[in-house]
Amino acid sequence: MVLAEFEMIAKHFAPMAAPGALGLLDDAAILTPPAGHDLVVTKDMLVAGVHFFPEDPAGLIAAKALRVNLSDLAAKGAEPLGFLLGLAIPDGLGDDWLAAFAAGLASNSTAYGIPLFGGDTVRMPGPLTVSITAFGSVPAGTMVKRNAVRPHDHLFVTSVIGDAALGLKLRQNPEAPWAKALSPKSRHWLLDLYLLPWPRNRIAPQLRAFANAAMDISDGFIGDLTKMLAGSGLGGIISLDAVPFSPAVQDAIALEPPLRDTALTGGDDYELLIAVGPDRADGFLAAMADNDMPITCIGEAQEGALRFLEADGAARSFAHGSFVHF
Amino acid sequence: MVLAEFEMIAKHFAPMAAPGALGLLDDAAILTPPAGHDLVVTKDMLVAGVHFFPEDPAGLIAAKALRVNLSDLAAKGAEPLGFLLGLAIPDGLGDDWLAAFAAGLASNSTAYGIPLFGGDTVRMPGPLTVSITAFGSVPAGTMVKRNAVRPHDHLFVTSVIGDAALGLKLRQNPEAPWAKALSPKSRHWLLDLYLLPWPRNRIAPQLRAFANAAMDISDGFIGDLTKMLAGSGLGGIISLDAVPFSPAVQDAIALEPPLRDTALTGGDDYELLIAVGPDRADGFLAAMADNDMPITCIGEAQEGALRFLEADGAARSFAHGSFVHF
Repeated sequence: MVLAEFEMIAKHFAPMAAPGALGLLDDAAILTPPAGHDLVVTKDMLVAGVHFFPEDPAGLIAAKALRVNLSDLAAKGAEPLGFLLGLAIPDGLGDDWLAAFAAGLASNSTAYGIPLFGGDTVRMPGPLTVSITAFGSVPAGTMVKRNAVRPHDHLFVTSVIGDAALGLKLRQNPEAPWAKALSPKSRHWLLDLYLLPWPRNRIAPQLRAFANAAMDISDGFIGDLTKMLAGSGLGGIISLDAVPFSPAVQDAIALEPPLRDTALTGGDDYELLIAVGPDRADGFLAAMADNDMPITCIGEAQEGALRFLEADGAARSFAHGSFVHF
Repeated sequence: MVLAEFEMIAKHFAPMAAPGALGLLDDAAILTPPAGHDLVVTKDMLVAGVHFFPEDPAGLIAAKALRVNLSDLAAKGAEPLGFLLGLAIPDGLGDDWLAAFAAGLASNSTAYGIPLFGGDTVRMPGPLTVSITAFGSVPAGTMVKRNAVRPHDHLFVTSVIGDAALGLKLRQNPEAPWAKALSPKSRHWLLDLYLLPWPRNRIAPQLRAFANAAMDISDGFIGDLTKMLAGSGLGGIISLDAVPFSPAVQDAIALEPPLRDTALTGGDDYELLIAVGPDRADGFLAAMADNDMPITCIGEAQEGALRFLEADGAARSFAHGSFVHF
């Protein structure tokens, strides 16, 4: 049985509350950015059956919901300040489920330094829905924008692309020949990365210092890169050969070559696309060297069309560059 | 057909966007409170079939979702600054529905001076869900808290109680004898107040100036008043006879006396409970006199038990003081 809302909040959520949250017992909270800082706000909503599987572990659902919002803050160069939780809970999920959800949320709240400021819990005659609003701060005027790429900017991507998209494929069709041929290690890697992204908040200071523009890749590498460049009024040249893949994705592509397009266009990467001016690219790479965070240059922004080139110079186009909600 | 997310946002939501919203084309927005002010944040989630009827007009659903959040700001004495919209849309709702939703949202955004800063739209394989995060500001340190009632505070309520609860009863059982006996004018009054609350943001300055504590009544007058006093470690004496009802509620109670308890305990009032020190009550009433906003003293906070008294002095208790989600 799920506890009454009041007790439920006190029991499960109060331990991760921020001082300004008034013990989560008020209708609102106080959240003021440090003096001389801008407040950065973002909101990502996750629905069971759309953004995760209803049977996923409760703690990982909570972690993912918080991390996708942290990823938006990371892309803006913002330091985490706090979050609000909107939770619409189906009847079937009881107190044990909620305890596991809260535990996953609390451990990530602590790990990323983002306390809970409040929210709302409601009954849901439908799929579990988690709506998080995250707050961050940047020194005034330094938020990294999405649509501010400049001509000749070098385009970087953090870590590797496509793991989550192939993890989703594995969930949807575990009996596919490539899925069954994949090593257990690669299979688990892909499944894990679909369940739980790793937001890149650690490099927010480098983004503020060096990036002209950035965004987090949530709806697919090709589509989101297209969006960022088009939003900046630009095109460019992208070397598909340079796009970094994990060994697990490389294994999967070796078994089933069309999966390369899945990796390039599928969603849920939560890596960062970062545009840095050509004169500052070396400085950026030097600043990133201390971070133990892989970073790869995958192309250059230019006026005019956006071209995706294979290693042999052949141009590619993509029918669906990204995950489409509607 | 619903437009792609990108076009959908540009078409329907960009017109109500704040300057800091970056045209709603970024992953986040900048929202910084004025210097010397605290930021007040609140979040209320509404689900079709729980908080409104799926067949309600789209524009009124949008208006209600925004207004219940405005009501939380009003209770804190906060001036509206902006909001984020999380919208989970079932497949059946197309572009016409969305246009009506956006129009209702835009007119209320303008009327209450609360521009849109961003949000998220996702597909929902379940009921329409609207998750709004609202931001307000108060001069630093002046937010009106909920659990800060002091002994001997006079307890006030704005306007009238119970219209929405009886409006909901009418929706649920339009063939009830009292419903059929009610005048068309009273019937429409109740139905309208259920569809659309009227948040009391206009009196936020008076709350900051005079109130020790306040909350908005969303889950029922009796239950929310109990919550505010218990949260302050207090009880008190409440004169049930003093609780203000509209002529429509009075008509309904005359036809069906048990509806008085429905009016006292039902949800969706969005009136304010306001606690004011005894030495400041006259000043508060004088400051409210210019506002054309009815205000009624319904009791006094005291140490010890909370007692609800009828006109003849008999004590009442309520099995269910409020709307229960879980």
